[in-house]
Amino acid sequence: MADGRDYSHDGPTEKCGVVGVSLADRNAARPLYYSLYALQHRGQESAGIVTHDGFQQHSHVDMGLVGDVFDEDDLDQLNGPAGIGHVRYPTAGGVNNCCAQPFSVSFKSGALGLAHNGNLVNADELRDELESLGHAFTSSGDTEVIAHDLARNLLEEDLVRAVKRTMERIHGSYSLTIMHDDMVLGVRDPQGNRPLCIGKVDDGYVVASESAAIDTLDGELVRDVRPGELVLLEKGGTGFDSYQLVEPDNTAHCFFEHVYFARPDSIIDDNLVYEVRRNLGRKLWEESGIDTDVVMPVPDSGRAFASGYAEAANEDEEADGVEFAEGLMKNRYVGRTFIMPTQDERERAVRLKLNPIKSTVEGKTVTIIDDSIVRGTTSNQLVDLLRDAGAEEVHMRIGAPAIVAPCYMGIDMASREELIAAGQSTEDVRDVIGADSLSYLSIDAIADVLGQSRADLCLGCVTGEYPYDIDGEPTDRDVERPTVGERTLADD
Amino acid sequence: MADGRDYSHDGPTEKCGVVGVSLADRNAARPLYYSLYALQHRGQESAGIVTHDGFQQHSHVDMGLVGDVFDEDDLDQLNGPAGIGHVRYPTAGGVNNCCAQPFSVSFKSGALGLAHNGNLVNADELRDELESLGHAFTSSGDTEVIAHDLARNLLEEDLVRAVKRTMERIHGSYSLTIMHDDMVLGVRDPQGNRPLCIGKVDDGYVVASESAAIDTLDGELVRDVRPGELVLLEKGGTGFDSYQLVEPDNTAHCFFEHVYFARPDSIIDDNLVYEVRRNLGRKLWEESGIDTDVVMPVPDSGRAFASGYAEAANEDEEADGVEFAEGLMKNRYVGRTFIMPTQDERERAVRLKLNPIKSTVEGKTVTIIDDSIVRGTTSNQLVDLLRDAGAEEVHMRIGAPAIVAPCYMGIDMASREELIAAGQSTEDVRDVIGADSLSYLSIDAIADVLGQSRADLCLGCVTGEYPYDIDGEPTDRDVERPTVGERTLADD
Amino acid sequence: MADGRDYSHDGPTEKCGVVGVSLADRNAARPLYYSLYALQHRGQESAGIVTHDGFQQHSHVDMGLVGDVFDEDDLDQLNGPAGIGHVRYPTAGGVNNCCAQPFSVSFKSGALGLAHNGNLVNADELRDELESLGHAFTSSGDTEVIAHDLARNLLEEDLVRAVKRTMERIHGSYSLTIMHDDMVLGVRDPQGNRPLCIGKVDDGYVVASESAAIDTLDGELVRDVRPGELVLLEKGGTGFDSYQLVEPDNTAHCFFEHVYFARPDSIIDDNLVYEVRRNLGRKLWEESGIDTDVVMPVPDSGRAFASGYAEAANEDEEADGVEFAEGLMKNRYVGRTFIMPTQDERERAVRLKLNPIKSTVEGKTVTIIDDSIVRGTTSNQLVDLLRDAGAEEVHMRIGAPAIVAPCYMGIDMASREELIAAGQSTEDVRDVIGADSLSYLSIDAIADVLGQSRADLCLGCVTGEYPYDIDGEPTDRDVERPTVGERTLADD
Amino acid sequence: MADGRDYSHDGPTEKCGVVGVSLADRNAARPLYYSLYALQHRGQESAGIVTHDGFQQHSHVDMGLVGDVFDEDDLDQLNGPAGIGHVRYPTAGGVNNCCAQPFSVSFKSGALGLAHNGNLVNADELRDELESLGHAFTSSGDTEVIAHDLARNLLEEDLVRAVKRTMERIHGSYSLTIMHDDMVLGVRDPQGNRPLCIGKVDDGYVVASESAAIDTLDGELVRDVRPGELVLLEKGGTGFDSYQLVEPDNTAHCFFEHVYFARPDSIIDDNLVYEVRRNLGRKLWEESGIDTDVVMPVPDSGRAFASGYAEAANEDEEADGVEFAEGLMKNRYVGRTFIMPTQDERERAVRLKLNPIKSTVEGKTVTIIDDSIVRGTTSNQLVDLLRDAGAEEVHMRIGAPAIVAPCYMGIDMASREELIAAGQSTEDVRDVIGADSLSYLSIDAIADVLGQSRADLCLGCVTGEYPYDIDGEPTDRDVERPTVGERTLADD
Repeated sequence: MADGRDYSHDGPTEKCGVVGVSLADRNAARPLYYSLYALQHRGQESAGIVTHDGFQQHSHVDMGLVGDVFDEDDLDQLNGPAGIGHVRYPTAGGVNNCCAQPFSVSFKSGALGLAHNGNLVNADELRDELESLGHAFTSSGDTEVIAHDLARNLLEEDLVRAVKRTMERIHGSYSLTIMHDDMVLGVRDPQGNRPLCIGKVDDGYVVASESAAIDTLDGELVRDVRPGELVLLEKGGTGFDSYQLVEPDNTAHCFFEHVYFARPDSIIDDNLVYEVRRNLGRKLWEESGIDTDVVMPVPDSGRAFASGYAEAANEDEEADGVEFAEGLMKNRYVGRTFIMPTQDERERAVRLKLNPIKSTVEGKTVTIIDDSIVRGTTSNQLVDLLRDAGAEEVHMRIGAPAIVAPCYMGIDMASREELIAAGQSTEDVRDVIGADSLSYLSIDAIADVLGQSRADLCLGCVTGEYPYDIDGEPTDRDVERPTVGERTLADD
Repeated sequence: MADGRDYSHDGPTEKCGVVGVSLADRNAARPLYYSLYALQHRGQESAGIVTHDGFQQHSHVDMGLVGDVFDEDDLDQLNGPAGIGHVRYPTAGGVNNCCAQPFSVSFKSGALGLAHNGNLVNADELRDELESLGHAFTSSGDTEVIAHDLARNLLEEDLVRAVKRTMERIHGSYSLTIMHDDMVLGVRDPQGNRPLCIGKVDDGYVVASESAAIDTLDGELVRDVRPGELVLLEKGGTGFDSYQLVEPDNTAHCFFEHVYFARPDSIIDDNLVYEVRRNLGRKLWEESGIDTDVVMPVPDSGRAFASGYAEAANEDEEADGVEFAEGLMKNRYVGRTFIMPTQDERERAVRLKLNPIKSTVEGKTVTIIDDSIVRGTTSNQLVDLLRDAGAEEVHMRIGAPAIVAPCYMGIDMASREELIAAGQSTEDVRDVIGADSLSYLSIDAIADVLGQSRADLCLGCVTGEYPYDIDGEPTDRDVERPTVGERTLADD
Repeated sequence: MADGRDYSHDGPTEKCGVVGVSLADRNAARPLYYSLYALQHRGQESAGIVTHDGFQQHSHVDMGLVGDVFDEDDLDQLNGPAGIGHVRYPTAGGVNNCCAQPFSVSFKSGALGLAHNGNLVNADELRDELESLGHAFTSSGDTEVIAHDLARNLLEEDLVRAVKRTMERIHGSYSLTIMHDDMVLGVRDPQGNRPLCIGKVDDGYVVASESAAIDTLDGELVRDVRPGELVLLEKGGTGFDSYQLVEPDNTAHCFFEHVYFARPDSIIDDNLVYEVRRNLGRKLWEESGIDTDVVMPVPDSGRAFASGYAEAANEDEEADGVEFAEGLMKNRYVGRTFIMPTQDERERAVRLKLNPIKSTVEGKTVTIIDDSIVRGTTSNQLVDLLRDAGAEEVHMRIGAPAIVAPCYMGIDMASREELIAAGQSTEDVRDVIGADSLSYLSIDAIADVLGQSRADLCLGCVTGEYPYDIDGEPTDRDVERPTVGERTLADD
Repeated sequence: MADGRDYSHDGPTEKCGVVGVSLADRNAARPLYYSLYALQHRGQESAGIVTHDGFQQHSHVDMGLVGDVFDEDDLDQLNGPAGIGHVRYPTAGGVNNCCAQPFSVSFKSGALGLAHNGNLVNADELRDELESLGHAFTSSGDTEVIAHDLARNLLEEDLVRAVKRTMERIHGSYSLTIMHDDMVLGVRDPQGNRPLCIGKVDDGYVVASESAAIDTLDGELVRDVRPGELVLLEKGGTGFDSYQLVEPDNTAHCFFEHVYFARPDSIIDDNLVYEVRRNLGRKLWEESGIDTDVVMPVPDSGRAFASGYAEAANEDEEADGVEFAEGLMKNRYVGRTFIMPTQDERERAVRLKLNPIKSTVEGKTVTIIDDSIVRGTTSNQLVDLLRDAGAEEVHMRIGAPAIVAPCYMGIDMASREELIAAGQSTEDVRDVIGADSLSYLSIDAIADVLGQSRADLCLGCVTGEYPYDIDGEPTDRDVERPTVGERTLADD
């Protein structure tokens, strides 16, 4: 497909990638541009860069892929050694210009730029409160709410305290890169829901959603930004200051970043995503391995899982040993402009995207490995494809637990009605998909592989219990969470 | 040229056209679209429409000509019988997305949309004041300042009083169309600097920068909006309410609308622009008529002036009678994408835009009539062209006084350095241009033809004295003007 | 409208403009580019330039306006001091890429480029004949037929004889610019139906459809290419050679070039188009002048006619004297991307394009002057508009005879069914249009003003009798015309 | 990258993919469209479809990817149950419109459409010969030469004999799909250099470059078109007729299709490409396996080779067993619009495309597997990347022999100067690349895996001896080849 993303996987969609850079005396625009390329998988709807040259802010934000949004001239006009960048995924409810980021505003004490990955759960309350104080908003996004709140706090406080005050008021998941004039900040929510990390390059420092962006700049990963931490990159790229502004009791890391979103070559919260996936694959064999003639990944999403699964199978002395094969070939050209086939051509369209290699399937028992099942439509088509190609049995093994509830933390997963596993047993799902057997990975395996307790993970989408107060949804009770809105502007 | 505008005239550029429509039960989008087409000459950089369907606001704003910005789908999505529209001219200092209008914000009591033609002289003070109260701005434009101020006032006052309070605070020239939810308003500044008029169509009412927009909708011009007046279009298109919110001592109508900007078929402040131009042409003959073999307009800007001038000449019993001829042919295809000629092809480029008809020029004495001279470069080229074509003498007559100072009221005229007549006598200008004689029209003739006293006109660009307090510029002393910022929010 | 063309005039459409340039040591691309701009009114569908640098041919041809088809890089790549160019009008039956010109082919003795204005009447016979000899065609256009025929003849003859042989075989109207390698030729058909002229610039020679293209290059018109003449521009721009290859008995100049197509500032067959139009206007007064309060042109097409008409009226001692006024204002922005109004908005759309100035019309008797009536739809709308604006009487005077038959000579006039005057009396047409009176100009007046005998004009569209043998149409009998296809390739 | 193609692999580029379809009573356009999607990897420069509805030909050809070239309307207008399609790769020497295919011409007996994959070695001679007979060419491509020759033969012969005559005259590699009116043909050159196969769908038959296109239509592969065979699809999709028009002594199948170009899921000349690559990987271990800590493919091109290599290694009882890992992560978004980094950012750009996973590399000995080395630049960068990531040793194993000579058979490989292995020993190449060891696969292994004798393969690029007579290159002497141009038109 045009953007290389695995759309044959009926997967969830992550809303954003963020980056911030502060350098000695080189313009930040190009490093930001290459970083956004490295984060493109986190958002293909819009891209933007905001820089500051010490005197004024420069901004270029538009709809489209990074490569389409910027040309040489655009980069040349984005002056200044400090800047932030953003890529954004389409949200349900419409693509539109107004929500492209970074969001920038000017206010009493200067210019603010914000790039946000995540989702606030109390944005509406804050918006109402700010509107009561006379604020007017140009968009319906969370980011503008954060920007206004921060601008307001900056009237009375210094930068660090103003950020702290805003962090005490906003509730939900957020990894932010912020520019206050030419000062670049990185902020991660107290539960550390979305990833954010710090990197060092030759002549400066970087904060980015994923370490792969730092690799792209030939830099070194320093460490993850800690939940509740503010990182302030020094001007001139000489270092960074850390402020632990909120002390969380528990974290709520999103396990799905590891399963699906993040690049395999990124290190998130000390885990290399590729290794996590391989180990999840190994666990999958341990929990529900089945002897079949051949094991094949759904490309590209299931590849690392399948490799771990097959490896574990071959090390398992009780097993017969499995053949690992690439039996499904993916057409990387099927993209957004693709003309949908008519009803009777529907089946052809699936084979256009994913074509089974008959010789590796025909007359064989087959296990296919994928990372997750969201709506289940593609899984169903895959099973049919393999049966048409002559598979005797088709077993499906999934490297994550069943997704039974929506995500409110910034991932456009699907509504509860669309989730195939919401309110259905695994046997029901298996039946709909048409597989001979179906197994998901256990939640404990996830926690185990990530080296985290369940209490430190956000498991909302697989348990239906959330680490945040969400209207109409149960809370993850055994965990103490900070309450929303402890202090309001009225207190000041 | 591509947009039909007379770029061969090195003219000033008007910043905007505005329109507002409230209808019975038809969508406002198409009437707004056709109105913007009728106002396209007032702005070619961006176009936008905002409508409201009683429940929510719909907005479509983009860079480009009206015909390029909207397609059928866009119009279909702009639901609701009430709406406003805007076309915008490029300002000095860069074309950019953020300043396209209408500007829309949501705030405590609903949604606001604003379309602005004019220029505030105290925008910076107001912005500072609002920023002190915590407001954050996404653009550097006046319009956002007005929107924030109005939103703030609407927290405490009803719509009419809120507008009145904002009008007491903003200072400068403005014709505004405003939407507060599905209520459409038209507001004209107390000096009536920019035009704004009211029209009636079959099923509703319209406010627009020029009456030609009303003609386009097959409507009737009701009257001009009065200086300092707020016009509130009733929902359902049944009528309009008028509130004289500020009572001005004097007006400051822009005479240049009549000379250059407005369409000839518009009626502005009770004067048909075409007739004004013809009468200015007649005055021009009276004041500085000269007997030459042929009189020719600079197309298209000088045509009405030349027709009045020639008519007066032929009625003048002491004169020999002149031949009126179209001796300069304009190429309407030369547009924005035109590749500039190399240095030695420069002269050819002028003839590409404007070609003299040799037979009407050769061996003759020629008078060319234009509406105004700004930078003088085109005038110079014209004189050269005519001499090359064999003209024995070339006299230039201008239907407006010499422009000696910049405009601060919303017209991107040119800087003082660029104005050929700033600090130069008419004889100096004649010399630079290379004409055998040059005469401008007197200021008194302007006032006379418009039927206004000089004290009721804004003559800043031809006198250097302004009817508003502008940093570093003298005020037009003999006129009492309202003072800026009589009341501030702090008073409330 | 976007391209400045008078589409409010329901006029015929000319198919093409051609140009050829040979210079000393400057690249021909830019002069060709500026020439095509000057000829843009002759075709807006596609534009193209082919040059030759002595070694190889360079070509850039694409759909769109000149300004859109070429950028700086395109011009820079079109190397060589010799070249030809073409602009093309959409033909009935579809816009398509394949017919954009110049058409270029390589063949045994080199490379050919052809740009064609006109229409062959025996293209199908020639195509069949060439196909019998094995030729395969990539387009359905005349130009490819001419190119193949010429290429074939060049196998056996020198350039001049090959052109002569082709001229003896092709029948119809054609003005061609041709490149054989870096040799530039201009050829005009034996009847001189389409215009073509020769010009001199500082460092070379030009052949072009209209002299305005030569003006644009700051050159001098040398003379028209004679009917049946081949002009061969010398390499190095040092001069040109003339070969009178066919000696015609009579010419068949298209009078409609003067009435409608050509630029007013072009000189065609020794007549300045602007003067022709003024004189036709004078004749119009003489033949059918009527005393009304005001005379107004349909802009822009009727302007020169109306000016002559009003002048004659005012010189006429028996007449009361008329007021000439611009009572109809044209919106130059209404272009191709215009969204068509719904049925009930139709009337508004007319006023969007052409708005009457009420004060010059209301309560008055009005004469409107236009150049021609083709389908009559706009004329009808105009009369309605003026009546709505309060005109007491509306009289229409047309500067050409009634168009009663289609054009087969390269103008996409309309089919016979669409022509309002085909098979209807002037009184019938007047009734349909709704005017109080309607008069056309006589054919004799046309011949008189052009200084030609009727036998030397192509009057097919106003008489229905053609100077060429056209299937199903009568021939203009009193004139001896050369017979088609006197010699065929089989003779050789 | 944007198109999913492995540009990090400095690989050769295939010129084309072709397809032809004849159906019962469904339009062929959509099946052709989906087929071209399946063949998109064979050409991204242009795409085109030509159909015939029994009465007339319809064509849509443009520059760009399949998804960009066609929209719904385009497909809807391509009427008729028979058609052919083409995708094309940029050739050295410029992208241009004229060479996009299918190429279509009309001639005496109807309309011809041609889509060509391959390269003629005697195109210039044929072109000269045809030009001597008066033919004129619009492009410099081979395809137009074939079209003209075929059109010419069709004047005298029936379709099958005309194709035979043309096949006897053209020399080189070609897989053609041809339309003569609504008759669809597939032709493969006598040496079978380029692939072409026949498939059956529910309601018709297909010829296509690769069987994956047939899979996409949910069809069944019937068999390869035989070298020298003409396949004529019956109208109505009822079957196909076969004519063995030329009987070759030896074939000259391109082994590089298997190594690099073709999709892994295609079956070419009875071999499944995926299996071929796995088996080549196995041979590679046998010939030059080396014990290292980890074996990793260059994604995606080396994956199947590496999988076979690792499998063989693990089966090898004398070896220690290797870990197969995905240690290089590819960014699929880096595409054509990518802004090239400045000199000092060059290294970063490589990591943007291909990022090593440190943990799988650091402190380890590494073998990387790729399919081929052309220019060697990427290989060099890869070795550097791995060393930077801490690899102790980097060994490179290549699944094909060293490429030492250019391809004249339709692949834009590189010039001899650009080929790193041309004139250099493997040790030299290893030194330039900086690897600790480097081994290519033997030519015998290729022949062995493909089950062909060397005499039946085209090995020009790895031996420098070609199975065709190419100016300035040695012929593969031990093989008898048909001589070019045995009969000329002059014979007829």
